Amino acid sequence: MTYRVGVVGAAGYAGIELVRLLIAHPEFELAVITSNADAGTPLAAAYPAFTGVSDLVFTSHDNPALATCDVVFLAVPHTAALAQAPGLLAQGVTVIDLSADYRLDDPAVFEQWYAAAHTSPELLATRAFGLPELFAEGLARAAEGHAKGEAQLVACAGCYPTATSLAAAPALRMGLVDAAAPIVVDAISGVTGAGKTPGARTHFCHADENLEAYNVCRHRHTPEIEQILAAPGCVVFTPHLAPLRRGLLSTVTMVLAKDAAADLTAADIVERYRAFYAGRPFVQVLDAGACPQTASVVGSNVCQIGLALDARTGVLVAMGAIDNLCKGAAGQAVQCANIVCGLAESAGLPTSALPV
Amino acid sequence: MTYRVGVVGAAGYAGIELVRLLIAHPEFELAVITSNADAGTPLAAAYPAFTGVSDLVFTSHDNPALATCDVVFLAVPHTAALAQAPGLLAQGVTVIDLSADYRLDDPAVFEQWYAAAHTSPELLATRAFGLPELFAEGLARAAEGHAKGEAQLVACAGCYPTATSLAAAPALRMGLVDAAAPIVVDAISGVTGAGKTPGARTHFCHADENLEAYNVCRHRHTPEIEQILAAPGCVVFTPHLAPLRRGLLSTVTMVLAKDAAADLTAADIVERYRAFYAGRPFVQVLDAGACPQTASVVGSNVCQIGLALDARTGVLVAMGAIDNLCKGAAGQAVQCANIVCGLAESAGLPTSALPV
Amino acid sequence: MTYRVGVVGAAGYAGIELVRLLIAHPEFELAVITSNADAGTPLAAAYPAFTGVSDLVFTSHDNPALATCDVVFLAVPHTAALAQAPGLLAQGVTVIDLSADYRLDDPAVFEQWYAAAHTSPELLATRAFGLPELFAEGLARAAEGHAKGEAQLVACAGCYPTATSLAAAPALRMGLVDAAAPIVVDAISGVTGAGKTPGARTHFCHADENLEAYNVCRHRHTPEIEQILAAPGCVVFTPHLAPLRRGLLSTVTMVLAKDAAADLTAADIVERYRAFYAGRPFVQVLDAGACPQTASVVGSNVCQIGLALDARTGVLVAMGAIDNLCKGAAGQAVQCANIVCGLAESAGLPTSALPV
Amino acid sequence: MTYRVGVVGAAGYAGIELVRLLIAHPEFELAVITSNADAGTPLAAAYPAFTGVSDLVFTSHDNPALATCDVVFLAVPHTAALAQAPGLLAQGVTVIDLSADYRLDDPAVFEQWYAAAHTSPELLATRAFGLPELFAEGLARAAEGHAKGEAQLVACAGCYPTATSLAAAPALRMGLVDAAAPIVVDAISGVTGAGKTPGARTHFCHADENLEAYNVCRHRHTPEIEQILAAPGCVVFTPHLAPLRRGLLSTVTMVLAKDAAADLTAADIVERYRAFYAGRPFVQVLDAGACPQTASVVGSNVCQIGLALDARTGVLVAMGAIDNLCKGAAGQAVQCANIVCGLAESAGLPTSALPV
Repeated sequence: MTYRVGVVGAAGYAGIELVRLLIAHPEFELAVITSNADAGTPLAAAYPAFTGVSDLVFTSHDNPALATCDVVFLAVPHTAALAQAPGLLAQGVTVIDLSADYRLDDPAVFEQWYAAAHTSPELLATRAFGLPELFAEGLARAAEGHAKGEAQLVACAGCYPTATSLAAAPALRMGLVDAAAPIVVDAISGVTGAGKTPGARTHFCHADENLEAYNVCRHRHTPEIEQILAAPGCVVFTPHLAPLRRGLLSTVTMVLAKDAAADLTAADIVERYRAFYAGRPFVQVLDAGACPQTASVVGSNVCQIGLALDARTGVLVAMGAIDNLCKGAAGQAVQCANIVCGLAESAGLPTSALPV
Repeated sequence: MTYRVGVVGAAGYAGIELVRLLIAHPEFELAVITSNADAGTPLAAAYPAFTGVSDLVFTSHDNPALATCDVVFLAVPHTAALAQAPGLLAQGVTVIDLSADYRLDDPAVFEQWYAAAHTSPELLATRAFGLPELFAEGLARAAEGHAKGEAQLVACAGCYPTATSLAAAPALRMGLVDAAAPIVVDAISGVTGAGKTPGARTHFCHADENLEAYNVCRHRHTPEIEQILAAPGCVVFTPHLAPLRRGLLSTVTMVLAKDAAADLTAADIVERYRAFYAGRPFVQVLDAGACPQTASVVGSNVCQIGLALDARTGVLVAMGAIDNLCKGAAGQAVQCANIVCGLAESAGLPTSALPV
Repeated sequence: MTYRVGVVGAAGYAGIELVRLLIAHPEFELAVITSNADAGTPLAAAYPAFTGVSDLVFTSHDNPALATCDVVFLAVPHTAALAQAPGLLAQGVTVIDLSADYRLDDPAVFEQWYAAAHTSPELLATRAFGLPELFAEGLARAAEGHAKGEAQLVACAGCYPTATSLAAAPALRMGLVDAAAPIVVDAISGVTGAGKTPGARTHFCHADENLEAYNVCRHRHTPEIEQILAAPGCVVFTPHLAPLRRGLLSTVTMVLAKDAAADLTAADIVERYRAFYAGRPFVQVLDAGACPQTASVVGSNVCQIGLALDARTGVLVAMGAIDNLCKGAAGQAVQCANIVCGLAESAGLPTSALPV
Repeated sequence: MTYRVGVVGAAGYAGIELVRLLIAHPEFELAVITSNADAGTPLAAAYPAFTGVSDLVFTSHDNPALATCDVVFLAVPHTAALAQAPGLLAQGVTVIDLSADYRLDDPAVFEQWYAAAHTSPELLATRAFGLPELFAEGLARAAEGHAKGEAQLVACAGCYPTATSLAAAPALRMGLVDAAAPIVVDAISGVTGAGKTPGARTHFCHADENLEAYNVCRHRHTPEIEQILAAPGCVVFTPHLAPLRRGLLSTVTMVLAKDAAADLTAADIVERYRAFYAGRPFVQVLDAGACPQTASVVGSNVCQIGLALDARTGVLVAMGAIDNLCKGAAGQAVQCANIVCGLAESAGLPTSALPV
């Protein structure tokens, strides 16, 4: 069975990555792509990589054909999903939301960090959180509901929370580290993470040959990371921008729990991580001492994880590398949609990057 | 039917791109990969993008298992193919050669430009030239021979000749331009074109934020371009290096034939080019005035062509953009192998790049 | 004696490079910087490289203090200089114009290529053309006038014309090449050449890892190059964009004159070029066969020239590398101002790039 | 008075940056440059940026003319300075050592981290540590000794320790943070930091579009940072490589001391940092909330510092941006030499970067 799908906000970077994945997907048929700014423009005119590949044309966000889809992906800025998700759900359309609008359990936290009212908090209780390797149960429930014909809402994790949590959560859940100590997250993103809208920060001549941190101690992914890691008030998150297009590396430094510090080697921790992620197609835990590279995952839905243990200072350094547009956004959304639709989790998703 | 294939020189950049394409190919089973320098090393250790994707291990070039393959790709430096092709052919293995060794019709021209003796000139008469869009007949003959069980030799075109010729050949073959006037080819390549061996020129700190021409008036692809374009002594070829990994853009300036200059518009020429390439899955001729971008083809086997006509000076500017490792090397080799094996020309070959 | 100078359009890329050079200049005192968009903003707030270096604040273009300057540099888009130069000149201020407004001798050519009326064509007859190595006489006359207290107008050459002409003009002026044959100019620029205003083309994620030609056969620098080279209707100019910030490389292919082709070696031509540029501090002619690199000149006012002769096809390939913002814009403007003010031509101008 | 100076290891990246600075220095005359690999090669042949600027030629390390210098800079790998410094000192030559050989107070720590014997530990007691903003006294003593004609040894701080310590030391020395808690240092360097020798990691096609950590929990700058910060066993240092040439950004996360957390704002801390660095020409403390960018300091000897305070988690995030080759190596060495020779600290040192 083929599912009819649509993408709202398809001309942005996460949106166009969804288009790439969905055009090649064996079970999804991409029927509608919307972009208010590019309505009427052929896909290939806006993105020449699709020349000769697709005849799709952008339509506006209010395209009624969205209601005819089985699944709609929302690749829109925060608050824009609040405006569209309830209506689509009411029309029986399953919504995979890539925005931040339904990620935070507590609408008050959303309102505090996003400075906007949450207009459909009632959906939060039943939405599934879209980070399959860490929140499998919610997605399994959503799949059951979908099989019964009930429209589902999935709130996909953000890019930084995905790389950070896949690297850090196993250690925390297994009690290897002290969750009450500060968890220091220094992450570096390529410039696609800053979005498609041209601006001073995304100008080539600003970003090229440059490194900078931004939104220090106030990035909106902070409460999301704390929620995923169950470590409220403990995450110090400093995002950085570096001169590359795709790729996100998160380096997480955590204080080892007393007994873990005494007993474990890095190889032990690698082994436990591998057991934790056994059977998951998109997480690869590298050998102890090996460091993940973003270039090894770009274009794929893979997260590569590296682990180093510092007996000297009693810390664990966990690193996660992803393609911020794929596993950090569109790929994860498709992975969630696959699960909700009862397909193989990896259907249509690349498992390897260009080798060079 | 699945074909068993091998790659000699699989750890170099063209070789590893072959590995990427062949692992994902629906009809080829990659059985042997060789690299003298990396013999014994697992593929994923040398190229972490393959972690979790393949358990292949590099073996040395003299691996006898090569003789058990239906098809062997040679991704080796010039003269190294001279050393391996005859033996493989004698063992009944079809050889797809990515090196320069069998490209030039005249062994004396090879010896002049490559400063090496040609040790198997007798193979030149029957080898097919591997640029399917311009030399279909030879590949069709090779396919017939292969179907009869006769081992075939294909000499794939080089990266610069491919982009240059796909952009220029239609105008020349259709008599739109004066083949006796100088044909000026200024091409720009990403650094993968310089190969994997580390050196002063490929050091990041040399290549980054830098532009330079090299081998001006003496690059070895010059006689190959002249052979393809049937324009001996007319091609002025200046290759340049720019700070990107993959991507090759060739800009060809040709003097219009008298009548063409008077009668044709750019749109006319676009139309004729589209007719010329009708039915070819990997060549896209852009609308008049549009310029191809290398980022639109990277990772794919596509060549995008742009055309501009300058009535003022009476010239045609034809631009071709390819991924130098894919359509300029490994992808074209797989395309040739597909044809020789009687498969769909596009089997296993990507037709679109990452959109951003 | 110190001269008081101002920069109109100081927040753009050419303007801010002027600011850099003028702050460090031993004889010029930078008194006024204007930017309508940034009026009121401290220089260091807009460009953090000036933190702790300068307390200048941007003012608006109509700042009356401009009239108190000895020299004002106009780093504004075309037509904006038409609006400011006459008034400043009338107030006795020498104007160094970096825009295109006064470059072309014939106002009709300006109007044709720039689609704008020329509102002060009477200034064209007496303005000096700002490319000192090729138009020394006009600048010498301007220096005489300036010494008498007469305000002067200098129209500085554009970035592409500068690199192209420094590479090609000696061969043409010395009769080594056939000026009536097409002169093929393929040039590559860094992204600063596209200006500071953010847009789709200058977005990091568009420009990075990408190569493209643009404005093929219709770039506005074409008539300027033809004027400088005295080769009307002969220049085919194709500009390209590559992923670097600063740097411009122009590769010029010219058909050798019959006797030159027979008699000269590349070393002969190098020798003649060196004689041509003897005593000029900013032009370096490399040994025969050596290719100039943009990284070797970035940050400096130098043009490095490489020359290759192709006896096979009878052409000369001349390459010029400059920093498009320095020798291609601000540095050349300061060089012109130095000459007009009777200072050493190289006062305050860097003669070497960062080595790596 | 002019000082005669030499550079040992002048063809490496730190060495060539020394050459750049010393050629332009008003008080130092660069008389000798050595490189065993490039002995006999003209400077401009190895680094074309010096074409027309200098006629210096590389000589070998055993050039006896080194003994005729007032000051010799050692820009050599670790242990190579051990081989040269004692001899030069014995000949009365002041030595500014950029290597790690004399940085660590305790030779046992050196031997542990560098796996090499320390062959002149007796020099450690009297050498000055070359980080002028934090260790002024030692350099002042060295200046006194030098004025008396006694040869001095300065061990310049490494690149990561410089950026890290300038950002973190004021908070620690002023008691604002808890030095016993883990100090998490995540730093990102451009590829010049990996040195000039070509290798797999510095190949353009590896480093471009890639992010990776390396030497996690075992980088040799760790004990040096702990020594400078007087925080033994507390520093968790994770260096990262990003695709740029020059530039180093260190992000340091420190737990606030109890009372500091309660009482101070970010603006307070900025004010205290500015007081701490009052009068230092090369350290700029940005306004609270502003983040330093490496592009704002490249080519200069400046360190820009940004500070953010997170009341939520009780931490201070201090960021330092430098040019790793200038303030992180050659510039700092010249700064130290200036001080030791009794010159202005900033003589010959650039205080601003290219603005774009």
